[in-house]
Amino acid sequence: MRVCGIDCGTETTGYGVVEWDDSARNPHLVSICSGGICPPKKSLLPERLALIYAELCSLFERYTPQVVAVEGVFYSVNAKSAIKLGHVRGVALLAAATAGLPVAEYAPLTIKSTVTGYGLAAKNQVQFMVARLLALPVAPEPADAADALAIAICHIHHAQTLSLQEARAI
Amino acid sequence: MRVCGIDCGTETTGYGVVEWDDSARNPHLVSICSGGICPPKKSLLPERLALIYAELCSLFERYTPQVVAVEGVFYSVNAKSAIKLGHVRGVALLAAATAGLPVAEYAPLTIKSTVTGYGLAAKNQVQFMVARLLALPVAPEPADAADALAIAICHIHHAQTLSLQEARAI
Repeated sequence: MRVCGIDCGTETTGYGVVEWDDSARNPHLVSICSGGICPPKKSLLPERLALIYAELCSLFERYTPQVVAVEGVFYSVNAKSAIKLGHVRGVALLAAATAGLPVAEYAPLTIKSTVTGYGLAAKNQVQFMVARLLALPVAPEPADAADALAIAICHIHHAQTLSLQEARAI
Repeated sequence: MRVCGIDCGTETTGYGVVEWDDSARNPHLVSICSGGICPPKKSLLPERLALIYAELCSLFERYTPQVVAVEGVFYSVNAKSAIKLGHVRGVALLAAATAGLPVAEYAPLTIKSTVTGYGLAAKNQVQFMVARLLALPVAPEPADAADALAIAICHIHHAQTLSLQEARAI
């Protein structure tokens, strides 16, 4: 199973593709790619959104994930930040729909507790644990990329639990 | 000058294309088309956004506006509504960028006062005045289409004022 996590942000949108490799004797998580999309701050909003959309479309085409996972909507932010985040989120969901990929959503608390065991973990704790789980020599940079990898790992864990439950129910 | 106004909404996204025809003896506004995009309520958010995006892209291709005009961001709404509106707004701005069209933004107060003379006009006043200004036999439906036409008319009025100011400055 290959999942692309996206951490939508107004300045940087992080992405991370993770694969669950169960073909080997020891099934494990593999980091396929990760990074951040940072449109130039001086460019106009429609151009920035067009860049994010184009980058995500090309990412899906190149790394062929089967699912896209995003963070659920955060209602504690103010309206001004929320609408800005909404712009990017809308474009990310559109890119997934254009590529015909299903979208899974996870609450920020669920993502952090899946990866670090603690729902209110700090950014550097998430980076540290993501690096450990993916056996990376250094923590992924920027932090948004680590967050995106965390979202992908969260989906893989939950999907595994679901498939185990389904297997037991048969 | 041909302008496409878009009134982004979570349930219905209104659109309206208006042309300023100054080739005749009496220069006047002409309504080219208007309507509302209403994705099925039961469909998933990415699919709804994909439908809005596809409809707007095909609208721009078919009616060839030179500018897209949208309502500026409304900060008085709550964060939950703001992020939902942001999704649609992001997709609309992306459609404009994809078509290579510049985007102009106007505050809701500016739009209403341009069209009705009163910044806090009610929806039916906007519908009534849009119908009068465009010489339509009946008020445009849905109200979101009338709002979109009002945004387009607002841009035409402001662009005319700007060009007059520029002409005087020479």
